[in-house]
Amino acid sequence: MGSRLSDVGEFGLLRELARLGLAEEIGDDTAVLEDGLVVTQDALVEGVHFSLEWTSWRDLGYRAAAVNLSDLAAAGAEPTALIVSLALPASTELADVLELYAGLNEPGVPIRGGDTTGGDRAYLSVTALGRSDRVPGRAGALPGDVLVVTGPLGGSAAGLAALERGLAGFDELVRMHRRPPFRLDAARELAPVAHALIDLSDGIVGDVAHIAERSGCAVEIHVELLPLAPRLDEVGPEPFWTMGEDYELLAALAPADAERLPYPVVGRCLEGSGVTLLRSGAPLEAAGYEHFRRRR
Amino acid sequence: MGSRLSDVGEFGLLRELARLGLAEEIGDDTAVLEDGLVVTQDALVEGVHFSLEWTSWRDLGYRAAAVNLSDLAAAGAEPTALIVSLALPASTELADVLELYAGLNEPGVPIRGGDTTGGDRAYLSVTALGRSDRVPGRAGALPGDVLVVTGPLGGSAAGLAALERGLAGFDELVRMHRRPPFRLDAARELAPVAHALIDLSDGIVGDVAHIAERSGCAVEIHVELLPLAPRLDEVGPEPFWTMGEDYELLAALAPADAERLPYPVVGRCLEGSGVTLLRSGAPLEAAGYEHFRRRR
Repeated sequence: MGSRLSDVGEFGLLRELARLGLAEEIGDDTAVLEDGLVVTQDALVEGVHFSLEWTSWRDLGYRAAAVNLSDLAAAGAEPTALIVSLALPASTELADVLELYAGLNEPGVPIRGGDTTGGDRAYLSVTALGRSDRVPGRAGALPGDVLVVTGPLGGSAAGLAALERGLAGFDELVRMHRRPPFRLDAARELAPVAHALIDLSDGIVGDVAHIAERSGCAVEIHVELLPLAPRLDEVGPEPFWTMGEDYELLAALAPADAERLPYPVVGRCLEGSGVTLLRSGAPLEAAGYEHFRRRR
Repeated sequence: MGSRLSDVGEFGLLRELARLGLAEEIGDDTAVLEDGLVVTQDALVEGVHFSLEWTSWRDLGYRAAAVNLSDLAAAGAEPTALIVSLALPASTELADVLELYAGLNEPGVPIRGGDTTGGDRAYLSVTALGRSDRVPGRAGALPGDVLVVTGPLGGSAAGLAALERGLAGFDELVRMHRRPPFRLDAARELAPVAHALIDLSDGIVGDVAHIAERSGCAVEIHVELLPLAPRLDEVGPEPFWTMGEDYELLAALAPADAERLPYPVVGRCLEGSGVTLLRSGAPLEAAGYEHFRRRR
């Protein structure tokens, strides 16, 4: 009896694929091909990444485009095209599919080509193509760098929780869940100078762990410095800011670059390894999200 | 009560998306971007496109790569990279996923980037990137052109039928199903001169109908001239050669180009519209495969 994905987790699978030479950069969100061509692909599966109970078809389309454009932003890339593959039950209303595509078109990036097919539930896979003069990547952070974040955290997870719990009056958080940002604007300032640049999709702890591991440094996050979405504690006691899907950018910068840019400093890189969360100087624990892995 | 996908079919959806300006080239298999960059994306859904009862993980990986490389061949493109998105149940064996990737790697095109996620069944979406000096497309066939096909039809559908019916001794057909070709070699000869070039994925009738419609001409297929896989009639009485997934190329060529190339002529283009199948000069009827559409 061999290992199952639930034993090794998404990251264990990715490590094994890299070790055997079966895939490159598969955990990297983006592949950088010749001439600065950047390609990113993300899949959204009904019941895993979204529920049509909480998401309209239009919002789903917007979200599928936005999460890929966010990956391009993290690569400092200007988008050129989206390619959409779609599996849908044959009973789906045509009007709903047209709404989905209207949402996919909202960011203004042309949809070119793709594939549509039957399926037992909705499955979207979007590939985004872009061009970048400089891809900061994850491996260049240096001891002495500071970390900045481009916007508030926790809004998406709290917005979803508010929907699931039937809490009224959290329109701003719900909007953060339904309409995640893609920080192409911030990327234009950060990509030319960042030593490492990522988008916060899986949760800040897991996301910065990639920078620490790939850069060979330790990372400290100062929790009291993190910009938070409003009214998180009115939705519930969970650490929503750790739960991902905020799609803000996080950059490792030389302190001089951080000083002249308008983004709050939330931590720093040090000699060593691993991620430490500190609140007022004392260590905290938190967890990111990993596909396949059983929760402990 | 609006239309459902089962009412309008895949092609009705694609027409509606094009009419509303919500997607370009989405029915085209490939998108051609700046500088001859060609991008194609195909999704394989368990229970729709394959069954793990009849397909090994390795064959599934090979197939997912091959069908995309076939789309690149139809665009006259040399492949540069594959990007793989994968949804899998957490209970999937790690060894099976590694076999899948080994199959994806078999054609020798590097796998760069992608996404892995949980799901209730296996879902693969592969994007293939390539470069082409000339994409013949579907719109350039001219009255007077002849149609050629690069290899035998019907093997894939008959091979699958042999498996499903428990018929032994059809290894060659089963192999045609499990290991579809991608005719990059033939594409190098055909793409520079073809007026239209496609791969035969959905079934020859529906596939040539795209050429007829987009080129504004009529197409005649002479059924007795079609190269067929061996022993189709021993598997069953169905017209396996109409059922698709053979992934041979079909080109519309000037007669002089067809004469100097080694591929059999199977039909021709005429003034008019629509597709006619002829056997010894008399009309036949047949059907292609369309996703979503109810069978009548």
